[in-house]
Amino acid sequence: MKKAIILFSGGLDSTTVLAYAKKQGFDCYPISFHYGQKHNIELTAAKKIADFFAVAQHKIIELPENMFGASALTDASIAVPIDAAHAAAIPATYVPARNTIFLSIALGYAEAIGAHDIFIGVSSVDYSGYPDCRPAFIQAFEHMANLATKEAIAGKKLTIHAPLQHLNKAETIKLGLANDVNYALTISCYKADPVSGAACGRCDSCTYRKQGFKQAGVIDPTVYA
Amino acid sequence: MKKAIILFSGGLDSTTVLAYAKKQGFDCYPISFHYGQKHNIELTAAKKIADFFAVAQHKIIELPENMFGASALTDASIAVPIDAAHAAAIPATYVPARNTIFLSIALGYAEAIGAHDIFIGVSSVDYSGYPDCRPAFIQAFEHMANLATKEAIAGKKLTIHAPLQHLNKAETIKLGLANDVNYALTISCYKADPVSGAACGRCDSCTYRKQGFKQAGVIDPTVYA
Repeated sequence: MKKAIILFSGGLDSTTVLAYAKKQGFDCYPISFHYGQKHNIELTAAKKIADFFAVAQHKIIELPENMFGASALTDASIAVPIDAAHAAAIPATYVPARNTIFLSIALGYAEAIGAHDIFIGVSSVDYSGYPDCRPAFIQAFEHMANLATKEAIAGKKLTIHAPLQHLNKAETIKLGLANDVNYALTISCYKADPVSGAACGRCDSCTYRKQGFKQAGVIDPTVYA
Repeated sequence: MKKAIILFSGGLDSTTVLAYAKKQGFDCYPISFHYGQKHNIELTAAKKIADFFAVAQHKIIELPENMFGASALTDASIAVPIDAAHAAAIPATYVPARNTIFLSIALGYAEAIGAHDIFIGVSSVDYSGYPDCRPAFIQAFEHMANLATKEAIAGKKLTIHAPLQHLNKAETIKLGLANDVNYALTISCYKADPVSGAACGRCDSCTYRKQGFKQAGVIDPTVYA
């Protein structure tokens, strides 16, 4: 079985990707990050989901607090916007270079365990406009990665898989349901209750998620506060 | 003054780059990493050098031990090779994706402080053959970085400067001396004495450094054990 690294937050998208990669026959190594996010209860969800899918290993990396620039996701003095999804500007929840950093760490991990496939749950449909979720970014990262490592220059190509890239949220949910995802276990909310995990229902992440279940015509199992 | 991030280990190359960037008129923000390297006394050197150059801010980031794959630089069970410089193969001191990870963190930091220039002391002459020191890698990283961030999509180009890329070690030393570097403060050795900082004189890093001073025709101020 080929090994794959899965960037895995415990949210709707990355859980769908984990389930999809597993169904494709990959031996999955999900990797999660504690990076000072207010909604770090997503990591509790991530652990339960990793157990559910009986992955080979679930790696959780504790990044230092001084590593990321200001963002509403990490800085107590910046509020997470509510009822603002579909706004034209990139929202305050944007974290500078987050996917670049996560993918880079995944790249090192992939080389360390002999994996040549990395999965990431980015989409450029029903999203907040983050630059590091777009196809051009993913392609450029893959190109760079194939010049960066000992494995790459030995001719072993690394592939960045973004299976949700062109799916809207409803299509993502259908893909997950077809691959045994229990969305009740996943947490997407940026303001999730730190104890119960209940979702606010109004941040951008909740808005896209709610709309996705509605459009997919399936019951939304999310517990809202 | 334009701000610049400098990837800064406290060694010969990155100190030369810091001095060069400063002389070019940049307001320098060196960033150093504690990543489990055995020779972490280089960070003590880095602090002294940052003080010497009176930089705006010297950021030191503590990365978790489980973040990097096996390398002779970080793993007690793998010996740092001695008397092996100029070997054909990439040596055991290679750390998977290290420069990709360091540059990615620098990219986030640059965006956070409004810098659009990152300096790195890589060279593809008198080096150990690490893939992430080559021009093609640096170019690909810069291309990716210009698709990754909010600043980039707003049209503010990020430049990765690698001023030592085509210099041999002797030329690097001459460049540093012309820009006020005191090489006695720098530590390059992979097996540096953890208390005195004295160099082994035989690891690859020492070998290239010694040879550089000799070829430059200047006195080598390094203290060897």
